[in-house]
Amino acid sequence: MYPYRHLFDFTREIFLNIGCSLEDAQLATQVLLEADLRGVDSHGVARLSGYIRLYEAGRINPKPTITIVHETPSTATVDGDGGLGLVVAPRAMEIAMEKAENVGSGWVSVRNSNHFGIAGYHAMQALQRDMIGMAMTNASPLVAPTHSTQRMLGTNPIAVAVPANEQPPFVADLATTTAANGKLEILQRKQKKTPSGWVQTATGLGSTNAFEVQSGGALLPLGSTKNRGSHKGYALGSIVDIFSGVLSGANYGPWVPPFVSFLAPPADPVGQGIGHFFGAMRIDAFRPADEFKHHMDNWITAFRNAHVKRGEKAVLIPGDPERIMTAKRLQKGIPLLPPVEKDLAEVGKKFGVKF
Amino acid sequence: MYPYRHLFDFTREIFLNIGCSLEDAQLATQVLLEADLRGVDSHGVARLSGYIRLYEAGRINPKPTITIVHETPSTATVDGDGGLGLVVAPRAMEIAMEKAENVGSGWVSVRNSNHFGIAGYHAMQALQRDMIGMAMTNASPLVAPTHSTQRMLGTNPIAVAVPANEQPPFVADLATTTAANGKLEILQRKQKKTPSGWVQTATGLGSTNAFEVQSGGALLPLGSTKNRGSHKGYALGSIVDIFSGVLSGANYGPWVPPFVSFLAPPADPVGQGIGHFFGAMRIDAFRPADEFKHHMDNWITAFRNAHVKRGEKAVLIPGDPERIMTAKRLQKGIPLLPPVEKDLAEVGKKFGVKF
Repeated sequence: MYPYRHLFDFTREIFLNIGCSLEDAQLATQVLLEADLRGVDSHGVARLSGYIRLYEAGRINPKPTITIVHETPSTATVDGDGGLGLVVAPRAMEIAMEKAENVGSGWVSVRNSNHFGIAGYHAMQALQRDMIGMAMTNASPLVAPTHSTQRMLGTNPIAVAVPANEQPPFVADLATTTAANGKLEILQRKQKKTPSGWVQTATGLGSTNAFEVQSGGALLPLGSTKNRGSHKGYALGSIVDIFSGVLSGANYGPWVPPFVSFLAPPADPVGQGIGHFFGAMRIDAFRPADEFKHHMDNWITAFRNAHVKRGEKAVLIPGDPERIMTAKRLQKGIPLLPPVEKDLAEVGKKFGVKF
Repeated sequence: MYPYRHLFDFTREIFLNIGCSLEDAQLATQVLLEADLRGVDSHGVARLSGYIRLYEAGRINPKPTITIVHETPSTATVDGDGGLGLVVAPRAMEIAMEKAENVGSGWVSVRNSNHFGIAGYHAMQALQRDMIGMAMTNASPLVAPTHSTQRMLGTNPIAVAVPANEQPPFVADLATTTAANGKLEILQRKQKKTPSGWVQTATGLGSTNAFEVQSGGALLPLGSTKNRGSHKGYALGSIVDIFSGVLSGANYGPWVPPFVSFLAPPADPVGQGIGHFFGAMRIDAFRPADEFKHHMDNWITAFRNAHVKRGEKAVLIPGDPERIMTAKRLQKGIPLLPPVEKDLAEVGKKFGVKF
């Protein structure tokens, strides 16, 4: 178990060592480690070495000049200048929230960015300002549309955070696939099979092989099969891709550059970097915030108290498991798998930072 | 086969007979029949008698005064005055688009409304103005959250329409359940079983009985089971409910009044009527519209040309099947099932309008 503070100091040192400003290193670390706190282990410090390798390959700019390239009172397009998504995304979300302060809502599409950590972090920034927050991003193509064998979309997550009053906030953060790639990676490490409906083979047959994507297979859109509505998951992933990529001038669909440094970006890009999309709506742009939050308490209580199926413990509210995990890990520390520990020790060694 | 014009004239007459203005009757008819054109037979003229019964029960106001009760430059809350959703929704979408003209985007939450036809119609209004359109609505509770046996959410659809240049537009319109209730109704009429993953029994067991909901069962959120991500479909349906119901001051969750007149609305409402949510974003609030639409053509072409799985005909773009159906039905007419014909003849007789 590693105390949050320990991982925070280490990670910040590494980001400082690749040339980030103190402020950016601090911010990137906070965003990255939020994944570890919330139990999304695939998106946290386990990815630090991946970011560093992208930097070494010249694919991440540690000192980006983040600019608004186009705007209206309620919208903006932001160029991330090839910076860490962990830094570009919170800045873009800040712009969305400023616009919401001014005209009720703010919507920001981002190009020329990189992987931004967990979507939920960015959406949740809106909570303390009595706003509803939204965040989405496109990502390297791993997902085949319904009826296809070709990887055309990323796992393209959508996060929405809604404040309540006495109840904890509603925080949904979901890949538009049956299962996020991180869930697959966990099964790979454990050498386990997947449940049916997560992946297909290179020819499009159902499979439970967690390594299927490495053999030309693909992840499946939420819904798994046409009969069970996979065309809906495909449509949702497409909407995320269009809002994040096509609207901003980033790459989209099969052109989104891969996160891993050993795979080259496409030779024929259709835009710049990867794309994100953020939204913020002031609650009191619709109704008094107190009134809304009182009703959110009522909504949450009603759903939490809905009849539970025999054999299950409780009906959960989106964000419940992550909030419970955060409290636990802040107290007891964050567990890391041996390969992650080894990886971090090597990154530390490279920069003379003790892990 | 019924010519579109025939059904249009008949339906408009009926709406005029319950007291709608000519303009409203015209609009309601156009929205309602768009479902028949697009092949969403459950949401079209087959529902006309249902609307009339709600009117007769005093639950639809044929002469609503639709008002903005709260607004900012980019947002508004609209009170539908208990009107037909078929009339309230296009008016609210119009407000969203006007706001988008002025400040880049417009977002409208609606309370005190009724069933609004197909979500896709409203989202598509944005297309001709080079905007991205969005529409969603809450609906009578038929869906059990993951781990629950209780019907807490409607099928809560999300529609997003995105313009392209030479290609037809991208139009996604999806219930946040495995299958829309209309799909279930078709199987009921044919006395067929459902595919697995659509419904559960009153105790939460999997079922393929198309009548399960009538025996205390429930529809399942997109994803079907926890293993296949039903918590994501549950979260998406919840977001629609919160944006449509809690934000506007409409009813939400289990309090949403039923569409059918023989079921009474809840005795303890938490808001007014049912709720919708609309959004419009001007494309050129993010990047030049021509540039965007050129890239949408490229996006659509790439996905349409993705490798097809053996045994399947084509990779479809959201909106393809409905567009093809519209062209066909405008030319060849709209088929109606015998019970729908009978139903319409009875409605006609009541008002002295020949079907």
